[in-house]
Amino acid sequence: MKVAQLVSKRFKETPADCQIISQALMMRGGYMKPVGTGIYSLFPAAQRIMRKIEAIIREEMDAIDGQEVLFPVTMPAALWRESGRYDAIGSELLRFTDRSGNDMVLGMTHEEASVQLVRDWAESYAQYPFMIYQIQTKFRDEPRTRGGLIRVREFTMKDAYSFHTSQEDLEHTYQRCFRAYERIFARVGLPQVIAVASDSGMMGGSASHEFMLPTEAGEDTLVLCPDCGYRANMEAAPCITSSASKGDPSPLQSVHTPGIKTIEALCEFLNIQPIQTCKAVVYQVNETDEYIVVFLRGDLEVNETKLRNHLGCEIHPALDLDESSGLTAGFIGPLGLPRQLRMVFDQSLQGEYNLVCGGNQPDTHTTGFNPSRDLPAAQYADVAKACEGGLCPCCGHPSLTLTRGIEVGNIFQLGDKYTKSMDMRYTDPEGRQRFPLMGCYGIGIGRLAASICEASHDEYGPIWPISVAPWPVELCALRSDHPEVREAADGLYRDLTSRGIDVLYDDRQVSAGVMFSDADLLAAPLRVIISPKGLKNGSAELTSRDKQLKAYLPLQDAADRIQDLLRQAMDSLEAQAPARI
Amino acid sequence: MKVAQLVSKRFKETPADCQIISQALMMRGGYMKPVGTGIYSLFPAAQRIMRKIEAIIREEMDAIDGQEVLFPVTMPAALWRESGRYDAIGSELLRFTDRSGNDMVLGMTHEEASVQLVRDWAESYAQYPFMIYQIQTKFRDEPRTRGGLIRVREFTMKDAYSFHTSQEDLEHTYQRCFRAYERIFARVGLPQVIAVASDSGMMGGSASHEFMLPTEAGEDTLVLCPDCGYRANMEAAPCITSSASKGDPSPLQSVHTPGIKTIEALCEFLNIQPIQTCKAVVYQVNETDEYIVVFLRGDLEVNETKLRNHLGCEIHPALDLDESSGLTAGFIGPLGLPRQLRMVFDQSLQGEYNLVCGGNQPDTHTTGFNPSRDLPAAQYADVAKACEGGLCPCCGHPSLTLTRGIEVGNIFQLGDKYTKSMDMRYTDPEGRQRFPLMGCYGIGIGRLAASICEASHDEYGPIWPISVAPWPVELCALRSDHPEVREAADGLYRDLTSRGIDVLYDDRQVSAGVMFSDADLLAAPLRVIISPKGLKNGSAELTSRDKQLKAYLPLQDAADRIQDLLRQAMDSLEAQAPARI
Repeated sequence: MKVAQLVSKRFKETPADCQIISQALMMRGGYMKPVGTGIYSLFPAAQRIMRKIEAIIREEMDAIDGQEVLFPVTMPAALWRESGRYDAIGSELLRFTDRSGNDMVLGMTHEEASVQLVRDWAESYAQYPFMIYQIQTKFRDEPRTRGGLIRVREFTMKDAYSFHTSQEDLEHTYQRCFRAYERIFARVGLPQVIAVASDSGMMGGSASHEFMLPTEAGEDTLVLCPDCGYRANMEAAPCITSSASKGDPSPLQSVHTPGIKTIEALCEFLNIQPIQTCKAVVYQVNETDEYIVVFLRGDLEVNETKLRNHLGCEIHPALDLDESSGLTAGFIGPLGLPRQLRMVFDQSLQGEYNLVCGGNQPDTHTTGFNPSRDLPAAQYADVAKACEGGLCPCCGHPSLTLTRGIEVGNIFQLGDKYTKSMDMRYTDPEGRQRFPLMGCYGIGIGRLAASICEASHDEYGPIWPISVAPWPVELCALRSDHPEVREAADGLYRDLTSRGIDVLYDDRQVSAGVMFSDADLLAAPLRVIISPKGLKNGSAELTSRDKQLKAYLPLQDAADRIQDLLRQAMDSLEAQAPARI
Repeated sequence: MKVAQLVSKRFKETPADCQIISQALMMRGGYMKPVGTGIYSLFPAAQRIMRKIEAIIREEMDAIDGQEVLFPVTMPAALWRESGRYDAIGSELLRFTDRSGNDMVLGMTHEEASVQLVRDWAESYAQYPFMIYQIQTKFRDEPRTRGGLIRVREFTMKDAYSFHTSQEDLEHTYQRCFRAYERIFARVGLPQVIAVASDSGMMGGSASHEFMLPTEAGEDTLVLCPDCGYRANMEAAPCITSSASKGDPSPLQSVHTPGIKTIEALCEFLNIQPIQTCKAVVYQVNETDEYIVVFLRGDLEVNETKLRNHLGCEIHPALDLDESSGLTAGFIGPLGLPRQLRMVFDQSLQGEYNLVCGGNQPDTHTTGFNPSRDLPAAQYADVAKACEGGLCPCCGHPSLTLTRGIEVGNIFQLGDKYTKSMDMRYTDPEGRQRFPLMGCYGIGIGRLAASICEASHDEYGPIWPISVAPWPVELCALRSDHPEVREAADGLYRDLTSRGIDVLYDDRQVSAGVMFSDADLLAAPLRVIISPKGLKNGSAELTSRDKQLKAYLPLQDAADRIQDLLRQAMDSLEAQAPARI
């Protein structure tokens, strides 16, 4: 295909609202165009990447016995009421009514649809296990879209659902899918993707992993232990602390702390460290506005995901404390609060003593707080964020490191959450009715494409791996107005095309600067340049987008050499993928 | 893949609500399952057909320089307001609001999105023509869903949009796409699809064609002329009549017709033919309830599409005439009606005389009605349905025949309707700003799959053409508990699979009856049966799903022969497609 005909707008200036580099490069390269908030149209270059990623995913899902199906985007609310998610999920689930007034939803995942499809088929244990998957458009009414295709409202997703008669069998398929995902990410050029333990969130179920591309542009924080290989999403990482209290336990004592409302100010005022304080953070339950006060050691932060899971309800930080709360902003402490107030004690307080906490009076703190002595009935929960240098929950070393990542895939063991609520049963060998166990497995295709760009680019454009590049080769005819350039370039274009190689051909009469900056944005891994200068030596210039290669090829060998190089590049990418299991 | 593992529910009984045979067979064969009204999930067998059809469509669209893109399913209403369609389209356009209260729509077509994608790119005449297309989910809130995948609310569609600087150029691409469609339908096994002139409806624009599969199960009526090849959808076919009036014009005369309220009763009462009457049909404008009376010759029916186009507004038949209308139900005639009443005269009345019409009084008709004499100012419009034996608008012969068909594709010349309303311009060679012309081109993939089944089946199941069959070959191991059957069948399965042939393998220990009735429903074009009986002669039995072939193959030659047969079948299907232009 010729660049002159290619439908895509390329430009130099980074659009003002770009948050990350992949977004800027993909906007500048004419890969996509916003249609609404978090909603994009894809130009041909991006759609070619999508189709190549989809083909790789299909191969790997088929190889682990996945069967491709298609679920609808629009579904009756009744189906989501069966599982309870119609009411449980917030406004990210798009609800609407059709012309007859029926409640409907736009699918954000398809657990319900998958159970509905198979529940009257898979009636005998002999039909298990099986896995179905689809590649389909999804809609999630994200409040915060971000980073181009990284966090959008409408997206194309591969979602798979497996069904099992035992936990062992579920785990076996889970492992096979885990490996399939490792293969997928390696084949699309992201062997650096790592799997981390994750929070199961609204999906329900027990074990789950997220596949993360480590990058500063990520919105997730990963907790890693270089000593033992432990990896978790911050949302799911336990926070384990060792006691920092020193000396003998002191008695409780009130101190006057005029205008001292933050931990920082308190530490300065009393010349102590945050680790010697007990911090209060106030939340409200979304539905009822009820206040909840979380107490944790002053050096730690609340992990809202863990808090939410602990409470079992949606919450938000309390912005204003009204008078009825009985709370004295800036001076909240665990002792002497109104009885009816709900309190959560983080386990970081357990075993500590001589802490400074709020005195529940204006300008007052209390020293010598000793939770086990002063609040013997307190129950502790893990609701704090793990932190850099913290104790690894796996090996116990104080070696945790934090890094950022983009979630490019996830796998969940759902258990019987959906089959039970939707009454899907099978008959076991003894004739008993049982609920099958489920796993689910997702990859967002557009986000993966953007992540590849985020991981692989230079200042001039994306550096697409050969397996997903929109075009493997770009042919640049410099001075195509010269008949000998035109003839040589047209000839090489025909030759490469006849070999089944998809060539992007730039025969525009534009400057080398324009041609090459466009080529950097469209980012074919191999670039062949035919120019009057090269033709004097009977050669074509060959460069690679990653700048690793620069060579002059005799024109008559060019097609053979390019074909070889493409094959080698593809083989070496495939070789990075671990073997199937 | 093994039948035992295949996710699909097959059954014998036709579901009660099936309206057409393809629906019944595809339900019974485990191709799809309803999720809601007009909303289906597709089992693997159907998804395989979809993907094969999509691949053929992509090949043909790419061959006419189509560039694949992806538009979103969800779009801001603002985009549809630009074109005016947000208000112009009725409740089949699904409107909703997102979490921020923004008006949104679910895409039913993507003219607006296509203009939005390219309008800041295609700024110079030199970039034209170009065509973009997508294969994507669409939603149309159909009031009447029907026939399984034939008329649904959610569907997968290929929609293409081309952009041009002249009518000639638009027509050239239109012809190329016309041919591409002929090739697509031939390649999927429907060479009998015909193109008919169609009504442009809500799409706007001038010329348009629908590609129709002639079948009794169709919901469209086609008007064909066997003499000259004229073909049109009833909605678009002109109704041309020759005068049927005889004798000398008579004067108007009132006759007492007690209780005679229908044309049939009138004809019997006066011993005349419907062709000698002037019929009144009353409609109301949807928005205002205003009455509209259509007068036409008594032997004809109103073509509501043409009437709607003539009036330029949505209408519906008036069910009850209230007193204020000034209309006397059963006795409405064109003479002496209230002045403010809107009347439409069909051109079938032009030149007729001595007609009998309503007298606008209870139990009264008028004879001797002569429109040119009695209503000299009447304007005539073509709002009647063409009928069997009617005059061909092309060759004038009284040779029209009516037949039914399913619309499997459509192509429209849209002109500048969208580019003008959405202010898309380009600079022509003289530096002037102009609006490009557009064409649009659609094929519903699911409907096409169902249409293939409707055109090609027997009482036992679909007869899929080789190009779209979910599996080209089914291997049946009869008595797989016999070690020699197991060994021979497993060996042939491996052999065929290693040749890249996608085999459905039935090694279940079920009766031949169950195995073959399942095979008829899953409908692989070739079936190979390994049985103890055949193995005694060292042979496999080969049959074709269309019952044209039955042969015994020496087992050692089976894979070779099957591979040859598949290649031949595919070649002969491809040979039916006309050459590309």
